[in-house]
Parts: sequence; C-alpha cells; structure tokens
Amino acid sequence: MKRRLHQLTALLGVLMLSTSVLAGCGNTEAEKVVESSEVPVSEESVEVVAAPDQIETEAETAEAISPKYIFLFIGDGMSYPQIQLTNYYLSAVADTNGNDILESKNNLNMMNFPVAGSAQTYDSTSFCPDSASTATSISTGYKTYSGTINMDETGTISYETIAEKLKKQKDYEIGIISSVNINHATPAAFYCHQPSRNAYYEIGLEMIASDFDYFAGGALLKPTGNDKDKEDLYMLAEQAGYTVVKTQAEAEAVSADVDKAIIIDEHLADADAMDYDMDREEGDWSLADYVEKGISVMEDSEKGFFMMCEGGKIDWACHANDAAATLTDTLALDEAVAVAVKFYEKHPEETLILVTGDHETGGLTIGYAGTDYDTFLTNISNQHISYAKFDSDYVKGYKENKSDFDTVMKDITELFGLETPITEGGDKTSQKDSADKHPESEDTGALVLTDYEYEKLKKAYETTMSRTGEEKEFSQEEYVLYGSYEPLTVTITHLLNNKSGISFSSYAHTGLPVEVFAMGPGQEDFGGYYDNTQIYTKLAALTGVN
Amino acid sequence: MKRRLHQLTALLGVLMLSTSVLAGCGNTEAEKVVESSEVPVSEESVEVVAAPDQIETEAETAEAISPKYIFLFIGDGMSYPQIQLTNYYLSAVADTNGNDILESKNNLNMMNFPVAGSAQTYDSTSFCPDSASTATSISTGYKTYSGTINMDETGTISYETIAEKLKKQKDYEIGIISSVNINHATPAAFYCHQPSRNAYYEIGLEMIASDFDYFAGGALLKPTGNDKDKEDLYMLAEQAGYTVVKTQAEAEAVSADVDKAIIIDEHLADADAMDYDMDREEGDWSLADYVEKGISVMEDSEKGFFMMCEGGKIDWACHANDAAATLTDTLALDEAVAVAVKFYEKHPEETLILVTGDHETGGLTIGYAGTDYDTFLTNISNQHISYAKFDSDYVKGYKENKSDFDTVMKDITELFGLETPITEGGDKTSQKDSADKHPESEDTGALVLTDYEYEKLKKAYETTMSRTGEEKEFSQEEYVLYGSYEPLTVTITHLLNNKSGISFSSYAHTGLPVEVFAMGPGQEDFGGYYDNTQIYTKLAALTGVN
Repeated sequence: MKRRLHQLTALLGVLMLSTSVLAGCGNTEAEKVVESSEVPVSEESVEVVAAPDQIETEAETAEAISPKYIFLFIGDGMSYPQIQLTNYYLSAVADTNGNDILESKNNLNMMNFPVAGSAQTYDSTSFCPDSASTATSISTGYKTYSGTINMDETGTISYETIAEKLKKQKDYEIGIISSVNINHATPAAFYCHQPSRNAYYEIGLEMIASDFDYFAGGALLKPTGNDKDKEDLYMLAEQAGYTVVKTQAEAEAVSADVDKAIIIDEHLADADAMDYDMDREEGDWSLADYVEKGISVMEDSEKGFFMMCEGGKIDWACHANDAAATLTDTLALDEAVAVAVKFYEKHPEETLILVTGDHETGGLTIGYAGTDYDTFLTNISNQHISYAKFDSDYVKGYKENKSDFDTVMKDITELFGLETPITEGGDKTSQKDSADKHPESEDTGALVLTDYEYEKLKKAYETTMSRTGEEKEFSQEEYVLYGSYEPLTVTITHLLNNKSGISFSSYAHTGLPVEVFAMGPGQEDFGGYYDNTQIYTKLAALTGVN
Repeated sequence: MKRRLHQLTALLGVLMLSTSVLAGCGNTEAEKVVESSEVPVSEESVEVVAAPDQIETEAETAEAISPKYIFLFIGDGMSYPQIQLTNYYLSAVADTNGNDILESKNNLNMMNFPVAGSAQTYDSTSFCPDSASTATSISTGYKTYSGTINMDETGTISYETIAEKLKKQKDYEIGIISSVNINHATPAAFYCHQPSRNAYYEIGLEMIASDFDYFAGGALLKPTGNDKDKEDLYMLAEQAGYTVVKTQAEAEAVSADVDKAIIIDEHLADADAMDYDMDREEGDWSLADYVEKGISVMEDSEKGFFMMCEGGKIDWACHANDAAATLTDTLALDEAVAVAVKFYEKHPEETLILVTGDHETGGLTIGYAGTDYDTFLTNISNQHISYAKFDSDYVKGYKENKSDFDTVMKDITELFGLETPITEGGDKTSQKDSADKHPESEDTGALVLTDYEYEKLKKAYETTMSRTGEEKEFSQEEYVLYGSYEPLTVTITHLLNNKSGISFSSYAHTGLPVEVFAMGPGQEDFGGYYDNTQIYTKLAALTGVN
C-alpha cells in the first residue's frame, strides 16, 4: 500500500473544499485575557483565555435568534450505535403485528429533531479520546489532552466555559445534571479548570465557587478529599448559600424559591452514581425528574437559563459491554429530552435543545459474526439486572460462599435467561441454530447455551472464583476476553449480547463521530460534519458571548 | 428488565413528536399504475406502481430549485466508521509535525459538504439489511425483503426507480457506475425489477432495455446465463445500440458522440469486479476516471443528467475484515466525489451531489479491546496487498506447493509487516506493549507478533493448509474466527487491524445508520435523521417526478 499511500498523502493538501462550512479555530490567535478568579484552582497562577474567534456571519445574526432557554444533553459514550440500537430494540419489542414484514419507526425523541449533524471527537492525545477533553471541547471550543478539564495541554492556561460566560455576560441561570457524580468529568467541564479530572475535591470546590443555580444527580466523589481530612464539600456548599438535599422527599420540596440548590439522588449505586435505569425502582427519580425539577427551579429567570444534562452511565454500561443497561440508560436520557421538548412546545421561539454524545464507548455493533445478517434484539429483555448490581448483589456472595457453578447457573438463568445446554457431547448446536430455536423468546424466557458458550461461561466462572484481587495482570488473551471486569459477569453479558445479535469490540472509547441533534432557534447551524469544538463555537455565536 | 420494558413499550405510542420532519410513506396508499413494459422481466405479469406520496411543501418548491445535474454516490457498506477511519488514517499519516499534540482535519471531500443527515437502513427482513433492498429504498422509496430489487415483498409489484422516472418524465441522461459488476445489486437497483438479486442474466437484459446512456465499471456477471447457453449480453447490448468497450484505450476514445456506452474495466480482479484500489496499478483507471468519462459523455444533455456511482468494494473489503482495503476504497470513492465537486464548481446553481451508504458492513470500530484508548493507524500502511489478491496470488500457491510456515511468514512480513515474535517462551509481550514498542512503525516496517498472536496465526495457517474445500462446515468457534474466509488471510488482517487499533465484529452487514452528505440546490432537505426511503422521496420532490 505504500505506493498508494504517497499519492494519498499528496492529496491531503488539495482536498479541502472552498465550500467548507467549517470555520477553523485551530489556527486563529486566541485572545488571552488574564482574569481574577475566586475559584480555588491550582496554586500556580493560570491565564484564563477567551473563546476562539467566532464565525463572523453567525455572530452578526446572534442578537436576532439568541435562544433564551438552552438545553444541552450529553449522552456519555453515546454515538450512532447506542441510539440506533435503542431505537431498533424498541421497534423489535413493539413488533407484534404478526406479519413477516419488519417495521421500525423513529422511537426516540432526539431522532425526530429537525437537524442532525455529526461531530468528530478526537482530542490532543488520541483518536479515542476521554470525557474530560471532549467535554472541554464542547464547553470551551478547545482541544486538550485526555484527562484535562478546561485547561490547555501545558496545564497553565484555563479556558472559560459556555456556562460561565452565559452566567457572567448574559445573567443566565445555570443548571448541571448528571446520572453519575456531579464532580465527574463531563459535568465538571462546565464549571471547573483542572489539569487532572481526578482532582475530585478541587473540582468540588470549583463547583461551589461557580455559584451556578442548580446541580443534581449522583453524589460528589471524595467530598472530604483523598485523605478524608478536608472540610466537607456539602457543608462548604451550604455555607456558600446552597440548599443541599439528599432525599427525594426533600428534593420534591425544592422550588424556585430557593436561591441555588444541590440535589443528590437518594438511591445511589455503584461509585455513588445514580442507579442504572434498569435497576431503578418504580417511583424513584430518574434523569427526567431532575430535568423537570431544574426547569421549575430556573424557569422564573428573567434572562433565561442554560441546562446541561448528562446521561453518564451509558458510558459506564458500554465500558462493561452491558447492552441492556446501555439501551435502558439511553432511553432514560431520551425521556429527559422529552421533558425539554415539552418545555420547547411552550416556548418554541425561545428554546434551543441540543442532544449529543462526547464520544463512542465500546465499539458497539448491531450485528455479530455469529448471527450473520440476523438480530434477535428482544432476547436482551431477558436481562433483569445491570452488570454492576449483579456484581454487588450476587458475585460478591458467590465468592464469600464459594458457590458452585450449578447454583450460579440458576441465578444466571433467572436474571439473564441463559440456560444450560440441552445437547450432549460436542458442539452440535450452533449459535445461530440456538437463536433460531428461541427467536425473540419472550415465551420461554430462555436462551439455551451451546456447548462452546457453556464452556466459555464455566471458564469465566472459574476465573472469577479463583481471583482474590492479589493476582498479576491478565494475560493478553484474558484482557481481550474480560477487560478489567469480573470475568463471570462480562462473559454473561457478552453471551446474551451475542445471542441478541449485538457485540462490543472494546472496553474503552472509540473514534466514531457523535450525532448532534438540534431543535429550536439556531438549529440550522448544527448540521454538517464538524469538529466537537464547533459545538461551543456555534453556541457562543448564537448567544453572542465571547 | 421486564418491568421497565413494559413502561418502555407503553411509551412507544407517545414518543413521536409533532416536530417530526419525516413524511411517512409506510401508511400512505400507494397509487397503483399498471404500465406496459418493454423490459423482459419475469414471466408473471407485474404491476408497476408509482412513488409514495411526496412531501407537499417540498413538491411545491420543486420547480424553483430542481437540480439539472444530480450525482448520487453510494459507498456500499460505508457508514460513519468507514468514513471516520479513512479520515483519521489520513490525519495520522500526515501528522509529521513532531509535537505531542494530535491534530486532525476533514480530509475527505464528502465530510465538507454543508449538509450531513443520517438514514436508517433496516429492510423488511432485518435490521441488518442487504444491498438489494437498501438500494431499492434509495431508488424507489419502498422497503422490501433482503435480496429483492425494486419489487414488493410478494414479488408481484414492480417499483419504478428515480433514474427511470428522470429519464422518462424529464428526459435526463442516466449514468450508472460501479467498482463491482454493473449487474450487481446496487447498480441494478436503478434499472431492474427482480424478486432475486441473483438473476444476473435477467438483470443484464433489463440493463440493456433501460436504454440508459452510460454504464461503466466491473464486468457483467453471467453474461451468457447460469448455464452459459443464452445469448451473450454484450452482443445484445451492441445490437441495442450500445457502444461496448473493454479496454482502457477504447474507453479513452468514448466521447459525447456515442449514443450510449458500456465500458468494462480492463483490469478485472476478484469476481470480475474492478481491482481493489490498493491493488490498482499506476495509470489504470479508477472510479474517479469513470465519473469523469461519464460527465464528458453526458454533459451535453440539454435537460440534464443523473449519475449513480457505487464504491462497491468497500463492502467486500469490510465483509473480509480487511481494513486497509476498506480505507483505500473509501478514499477512491471520495476521489470520484472530487470529480463531481469540480463539476459542481462550474455549475453550482444546477448541481446536486449526494453521498451516502446503503448500510454498514463488518461492525468496523476505530479502537480495539487490546489497544485500550490508543490507535496506531499508520501501522495499517504496512499492508501492501488486498486480502483477495493475497488469496489469489499467494495462498493458492501455498496450497499447491505445500509451503511451510516459515516460507509463508516471510511473505506475511513483506506484505503485511507482521513479524515472528522476538521473545522466547510464554506470552510475555502483551499486545499493548508490542504496539507501544512499534508506534507508527514506518521506520522499521515491522510489527512483532506476541506469542499469543503468533500461535493464532500458525493455527490459521494449519487450518488453511488442511482444507481442500470438501470439509464440513466450520464449528461455531471457527466461524467466529474466520467467517467464510481463508483462515490464514483473515487472521493476518485481523492481527494487523488490531495492532493498528482497528477491529471488526462481524462478517456481515450491521444496523448502523448511514450518513447522507448533500451539496447543491435542495441540500437542506437532506438534514435530519430519517429513513433511507426518504432519500428517494426528497429527490423525487426536488425534481418533480411522480
């Protein structure tokens, strides 16, 4: 290929079209403005720079269409595969017409937005970027290294965020919601400036100093610092004038009367994030409830509001290759979008809603080598628990009780539908045959494993039971099989995924672009195939901040 | 998940927004018009029905913006992963600035189009559809079963295509180009009507009867029928007034003076398709040359022209999980797009260019479990031959000569860069370590295999050498490993892909939506997230055909 390669490289210089809709920011001289800052960032003095230059023509028309209410939904790890899988899954479960002609609809609110562009997600480190750098790009218009939040690659220059600018320059109220921790990378990228996303305590301090109006979702990580010796962040927040509540009953009482509020979900799950939506109990608040509450708190704002809402556990589910949790959390985000759409319908001239992802996670594919051109998506509904809850509520017990495989298999059948092979001897039942025998098996609730699959599961069980946490790293083969997850659990989800015609090829982030759905004033700016930094640029131009 | 599932299903009814941009055709009563047809289709009498209802508002404005020149590029199997991989690969090879900050541009012409929508690709059979049905949707606005071309699910009703209508109703000249056979499913979907895409001879007859002005690309499959007892299609074409040429020298002489032309590529490769672009010799015609020739043949048309150009081997490369051939053929399609863009620049008010895919193939991911958040995309440039040419020019010989593994390894190193492990004993070198040791290894041209990878390759070699073609089907494990491909070859491409941070999860088509890039009059109609049938609907509305 080398010969061709040289031709290709030579082409690079001439491929850019004059018709490009992109206004580059990479080559523009960013105006550097040193600002005094009350937020307790790192000890070094940092420069805070303003936005990249904006598109002239857009900026000129900004005053005319500047949306008073802006919703920005970010599905962490959500790209085309996650959206489309969720949509097709809903079509599959709704397909009860009994005829042999497959039908599908746009089942998701976001899919029905009038504009759908694409954003590239690479960062200064990798084509497979992380959430800190990608959220930085969306929030400030700059690329940076993976792991860095709103600072440049040297960690010395801070970038002001769209949320900070809207508050400071336009007097907007600001709301930040996440299903994971509210000082996790994505929400943090709207209020903090840190060389490392892991500085959770410092991020929490910046959160308080932001003076934003509404925070809601998962709990703060490291509220008293890494060594648990710092002043409690929640206490500091209250001292700074925040109403801090941690129960649903108290959350219900929060109204526009409060000055500013922090609502922590009452039912915390893995890593103090909100529950996976599939584990959520009826009546417990979902992401949609937090958006609704946020609106009720901020809609009296005279100047308007900006609300960022992250579906953060889509990413966590994809990392773990849990397709069921992926699609239910994608749907939970879409239900939150539905709340914004209802608000839009009351204020269509003044409300802009954007729905995007920060990057793809997991290399999710609708299709699998073993199922050829078929999918059996309703099979995934046999899963009744997220991988994380299975780990905490079951696997931990298996290890303590040294449960035998047959005992474990009973739970696996009940919770994931996978059943012990019915065949004797060799690998007689091919995966495809097996799936065909149990097409969309709502009736039996059972998916019989082939001998090949059963052996894989048993080996994973043995690996899980033998590991105490003191072992050396996985071999290459084991890493490809299990990632850094519980071998038993990730093998279960892999098997069920594959029997449903779904697969993942990575435990990390991938290089797929993400969708950018837009509805409302300025929506047309978000069409096309552009860099994620342009999401900031377009928003800034629309709202006239600089 | 069942409890949640019921809630989800209940939601389905209320999720559709009033703001939907989609005009449904599924529920409209298609007007059925029986037409006499000169084309020799099946013996049964068929009904030819008109288009689904068009969007009223678009139709009203059609006269004002109807584009005189329409280019429709279809990358078979090309969706977001193929485009983005090609783009990032070009950025990776161009990244010679020596600093540690990764940069990327929109290196592809198509990516710089002002409008980029998304189309869903499911057909009446599956969420992982085939090329016959998806091209039918693009060409006629109807869904049908996998394998069917421009007929309904009963195989009794024929659908007229956008190309046929533009010719009949608007007197446009029509050109059809494909890098695979010109009676293959995608090109066929613009001129034929067959219950089965495998009826190559009958499709060829319809091609001749279409009276279209320009066909070019790979050779006709089965030109004398399945039993080689039918009249030669090329002879019939000449009798029908076509200038038929099969050499490049003759092709160069074809001009607007000919009434209508069929140009078969001189350098045919696997299955009588054009070469993979990476195997193409300097000076041999590429897809771009056939577009240029097509323009020169048709641009004197008073009323205008419609040209469909398929990059058909992107799909074939993805089926075989050959990432290098995938990205070079995607680039070949983009170079063909560049020719249309040049034409657009001369006629910007009259030229509409669309670039889309028909479905995704292979579940291609930029990222791989074994490489975590990293890619090493330039590693893929160590591949100097497509999987198909390696099969025909090397593997066939290995089998005949019973070549030993060391001999084979020498070719593998030369042609794919993969090298025998340097470590002794167990699996000491993890894949990640190995890749780190040879980052972007242009210098050494070498990618040292880990022991684990080397054993995989050796096992594949042994499987390839042991198979005579008479064996029973692969086991489930072997199928997942090799698909229906030569075990040695597909293992080589898998290993090189993975060492580059690229992976495939399927040998078949997947359910990802495809991009729809648009530039020119009417471009704004192609934004949003819609069904692939809408590509027809929008085109028909724009051009005013019915």
